[in-house]
Amino acid sequence: MNTDHTGPVHPSARAVSPLRPASVAHIEGGFWAERRRVNAQISLAEGPARLEQAGNLANFRAAAALRTGGANAPSASDTGFSGDFQFQDSDVYKWLEAACWQLADTPAEALAADVEAVVELIAAAQREDGYLHTYYQLGGGVPWTELGWGHELYCAGHLIQAAVAHHRATGSDRLLDVARRLADHIDSVFGPGKQVDTVCGHPEVETALVELHRTIDEKRYLDLARYFLERRGHGTLSSGADRGHDRDPGPEYWQDHTPIRAADEVTGHAVRQLYLLAGAADLAAETGDTELRTALERLWRDMVTTKTYLTGAVGSRHDWEAFGDAHELPADRAYAETCAAIASIHFSWRMALLTGEARYSDLVERTLFNGFLAGAGLDGRTWLYVNPLHRRARSHERPGDQTAHRTPWFRCACCPPNVMRLLAALPHYMATTDDSGLRLHQYATGLYGGDGLTVRVTTEYPWDGTVTVTVEHAPSTLPRTLSLRLPAWCADHTLTVNGTTVEGEAEAGWLTVTRAFTPGDTVRLDLAMPARLTAPPARVDAVRGCAAVERGPLVYCLEQTDQPDRLDPDGVAVVPDASLTVRSRPELLGGVNTVSVTGSLLPAEDPSADWPYPPYASAASGEPRESVELTAVPYYAWANREAGAMRVWLPLAGRG
Amino acid sequence: MNTDHTGPVHPSARAVSPLRPASVAHIEGGFWAERRRVNAQISLAEGPARLEQAGNLANFRAAAALRTGGANAPSASDTGFSGDFQFQDSDVYKWLEAACWQLADTPAEALAADVEAVVELIAAAQREDGYLHTYYQLGGGVPWTELGWGHELYCAGHLIQAAVAHHRATGSDRLLDVARRLADHIDSVFGPGKQVDTVCGHPEVETALVELHRTIDEKRYLDLARYFLERRGHGTLSSGADRGHDRDPGPEYWQDHTPIRAADEVTGHAVRQLYLLAGAADLAAETGDTELRTALERLWRDMVTTKTYLTGAVGSRHDWEAFGDAHELPADRAYAETCAAIASIHFSWRMALLTGEARYSDLVERTLFNGFLAGAGLDGRTWLYVNPLHRRARSHERPGDQTAHRTPWFRCACCPPNVMRLLAALPHYMATTDDSGLRLHQYATGLYGGDGLTVRVTTEYPWDGTVTVTVEHAPSTLPRTLSLRLPAWCADHTLTVNGTTVEGEAEAGWLTVTRAFTPGDTVRLDLAMPARLTAPPARVDAVRGCAAVERGPLVYCLEQTDQPDRLDPDGVAVVPDASLTVRSRPELLGGVNTVSVTGSLLPAEDPSADWPYPPYASAASGEPRESVELTAVPYYAWANREAGAMRVWLPLAGRG
Repeated sequence: MNTDHTGPVHPSARAVSPLRPASVAHIEGGFWAERRRVNAQISLAEGPARLEQAGNLANFRAAAALRTGGANAPSASDTGFSGDFQFQDSDVYKWLEAACWQLADTPAEALAADVEAVVELIAAAQREDGYLHTYYQLGGGVPWTELGWGHELYCAGHLIQAAVAHHRATGSDRLLDVARRLADHIDSVFGPGKQVDTVCGHPEVETALVELHRTIDEKRYLDLARYFLERRGHGTLSSGADRGHDRDPGPEYWQDHTPIRAADEVTGHAVRQLYLLAGAADLAAETGDTELRTALERLWRDMVTTKTYLTGAVGSRHDWEAFGDAHELPADRAYAETCAAIASIHFSWRMALLTGEARYSDLVERTLFNGFLAGAGLDGRTWLYVNPLHRRARSHERPGDQTAHRTPWFRCACCPPNVMRLLAALPHYMATTDDSGLRLHQYATGLYGGDGLTVRVTTEYPWDGTVTVTVEHAPSTLPRTLSLRLPAWCADHTLTVNGTTVEGEAEAGWLTVTRAFTPGDTVRLDLAMPARLTAPPARVDAVRGCAAVERGPLVYCLEQTDQPDRLDPDGVAVVPDASLTVRSRPELLGGVNTVSVTGSLLPAEDPSADWPYPPYASAASGEPRESVELTAVPYYAWANREAGAMRVWLPLAGRG
Repeated sequence: MNTDHTGPVHPSARAVSPLRPASVAHIEGGFWAERRRVNAQISLAEGPARLEQAGNLANFRAAAALRTGGANAPSASDTGFSGDFQFQDSDVYKWLEAACWQLADTPAEALAADVEAVVELIAAAQREDGYLHTYYQLGGGVPWTELGWGHELYCAGHLIQAAVAHHRATGSDRLLDVARRLADHIDSVFGPGKQVDTVCGHPEVETALVELHRTIDEKRYLDLARYFLERRGHGTLSSGADRGHDRDPGPEYWQDHTPIRAADEVTGHAVRQLYLLAGAADLAAETGDTELRTALERLWRDMVTTKTYLTGAVGSRHDWEAFGDAHELPADRAYAETCAAIASIHFSWRMALLTGEARYSDLVERTLFNGFLAGAGLDGRTWLYVNPLHRRARSHERPGDQTAHRTPWFRCACCPPNVMRLLAALPHYMATTDDSGLRLHQYATGLYGGDGLTVRVTTEYPWDGTVTVTVEHAPSTLPRTLSLRLPAWCADHTLTVNGTTVEGEAEAGWLTVTRAFTPGDTVRLDLAMPARLTAPPARVDAVRGCAAVERGPLVYCLEQTDQPDRLDPDGVAVVPDASLTVRSRPELLGGVNTVSVTGSLLPAEDPSADWPYPPYASAASGEPRESVELTAVPYYAWANREAGAMRVWLPLAGRG
């Protein structure tokens, strides 16, 4: 058993990954510490109540009662499954995984008790043969016959992930044994010539099986992950007669149209696509499969260069929660599911470990601070399922989860516990060790290290670009390399070692300092962090002729409530050569820096017009327009106050 | 009975409408004559076979057998309803209505025989109590209990419209009696204190009941239409437990959130909204209700100025086939259902009759030539359900009706017979008579008139702007006014009467010539028709920084197949000050004028880039780019050749 690591994604000793997550990884202060505090004290603490209210826990109790045939066992005709979806169990597993990562970092009695109670509930619901999925146990249908929409393997994957977390956090085998029995059952059912020779409509089990293999060194699980990864893409999935799904999404929806190795585009349901690629990256790490790695690099680049929002969000299309076409990135109708941002981080982090390249952690940073974090309300109790980059003052949304209003819980509650598990595990995305030393991928005050070199980081990031790294422990005489990621957004920086400016080796996004470190050595990185205007790619139609305000890793937006006289941000353009002013506002939105930007009013709409499309010649000429001072706030903090219009992309004044 | 009119929308003698559709209305040549020939000889002629194949006609046979209890009667457990939707009957009714308008214009033996056979089939299926809806008759559920999704009144409306057309075309009461019995049944069921006190999820019966009232002068039907129109907007509809609809669209979807009189925005499902407003316009015409008229004017303006595509298409959102927010008009993900364009024409035409204002016919023209006509393949056998203004070379579409590929028939086949009935009735949208004389709303070679003044129009419109109007019959000495619509797109025109240039009275879009006409008098209107560049409204984010090519009433587009080396139109910008060259291409797409426009290549994408959003300062500078000659074709003709990219809106070169 491998128990020296208390976070997710832990390549085995045989893995080809040059980088390993740092074994010492604690966030101790600053921006993310506060978000993690809210996550632990509010989101995670209130999780069991939410899961009780939504019926998820009742499903396990009912399944356990059915199994033991006790007095409270449900009847065959009314088995009492609660919730609208086949994957309700996964909400429980994701909360559990999150709670375990949190406990591994910061022990807490009440949370630990909640965890053990839920673990027992899950264990009690498992069938003797290892099967565990309360929807089908409670009469939802015949197990393993509705692979398209049944989500049995998806839920199994989340159970396995939770079990790995529980084991790494507590050392206990209690849930790990449940996971093993389920994995063995799956192994007995799935495969060429076995009962079922296809895959799950929703990937997740793949990465889970690799992690299970890593945890208990059982090669059958790696082989099973490989089977699911290679079997996909051959058109074996179908909508079938699965209940409630009379529309056929087509094979692309669940990435069953072409094998990963042959794919040249990320397509279909964004979360499905990215969970799948995360699993493939895990497999490539464990097997050294270079063809698979090349395919993953190609698909990652396709995603980043043609299908990713400025915020790092992905999956632009409401219809089927899908990646759209290349360059189809509408700001207003952005779907940009919170879970898809998380999935992107999962994929990118695995690519960072597999390749050692900084670009992957650049995207992780951008996604963390923007597309991901916007999904979590500042209060820890409300959530966004979709994360548009533009909301109009009078916006038409159909009732349900996909609104731009923060919601306490969702009918399809995939996102909240997914946010919880990423925030709980966040320290493990900050730093890696490798043969030469330590790399800092993200900047947050805390303690990071392993293999003899441990450093303390102090920073006000993302509000300030100064990062101070002090060596706490170092091998006595061995030269080691400390690598600091130079963020792609940063145009100017200085690096000092013990007060002396050095060049540092700059290579492909890493600044490196190599020396025989001794405790007390201080490396200081100053990242210039002026507010800046960013342009869209030339082929992104939806935001052509616009610019966005950014500062450091943060994307900014205009919220109506911050503008003079609650001016609707849809009525202004930004003056491109005006200066941008940064202001510290400790009282606002938990403490943010705002950016002031000079705008000009768009011409008023003509209420008497019969047709709004003017001849180009007359539209191109414009009168001088009134100037106005606009205030931008970090995008992640939007929609935490009164409802109103919001824009990330601002039309450029004087461009017609 | 009122039988002097052989087209749809015939205000009664009591109606306040200043304009009435001209009683003489025949398209005899030119653009629309060819499209109507294809409609009659191919689309309408093949309609019965399509309806047979899709099972729609079988449903009527099964319902008739069930009623008479013959040997072929379906069993209660397997009643054999064919098709996926509750509104399958309406496809039959719409084809029938179309066929009747066509027969009224041009008798044809085979089509007449088809019509009478279908009429008998329908009559045989009607229950003794007047009820008629094969889905519920064949075991689909309990009639009048699923108003949200049941579509019973919607189908009833289409039956009534077909019956009115059959009566006006043939003089027969056979189908009209069926319609009366159904209307009487509805009248006995619906109303305050009656069995059902709510409305249908899909409007249509309202305008049908007004037309029935107009046809047989029965005030109860007008009152029933009024009841449905006024009852709506009070939140009485619900999704309920209707089968297959577990998602609640919210009251706005079917315009049940606010009464028409109070609404200030067109919202929700576009076809539902516009069929409803067409019915309200009919009611306002018959009752002189000025409050209702004011509301309709307000809603029409909201639609035109904030929610209408350049093509006249409406209903931008795939999600729930809805109007989006104001200014939410994406070119790529435009839903723009063909039926919504037809519904917009229905609404606008009624407003033209009600107000006498030219703006409504301006929109009818634009929609006819672009957003509507694109839905009909040049071959008369293939259709588009959705009508985007941009299709990428590699476009991701889910399987089903909503693709940008022409399809022989749809699972939800609302659009094809809707196109057929508009093309069949088209002559009746061309001209009106009023107290002072004759107005020409649209320009097509043919004979138009009534009340003593009849003219022959000769024109090559829309390829050429010359319209020659020759008086065929005129009252001997009475001065009459001939009014010609001056299209809003036209910046320059000349008007001559018998060879002498006159000013004409120009008022609010009408050019008028008043005199005592005599046969042979010739009025000639020359509309300058240069190709032109058009700009988008400042607040339409999706196409900011672009321009579109137009000529006359036609919107143009770039199709990949016409460009040098099949250049992808997504890779070019248009040079705004370059000249546009019009070329006649009789061999192309049934004969069109193309427009050549100078473009420049967008910078190539950088395949090695890790992040595609550049700093504004570096993006704004651009190198000189290669120039290229592009060929635009009329938008209505797109997607009739090999699949490929298409763009209406072209980025402006040198705008970053």
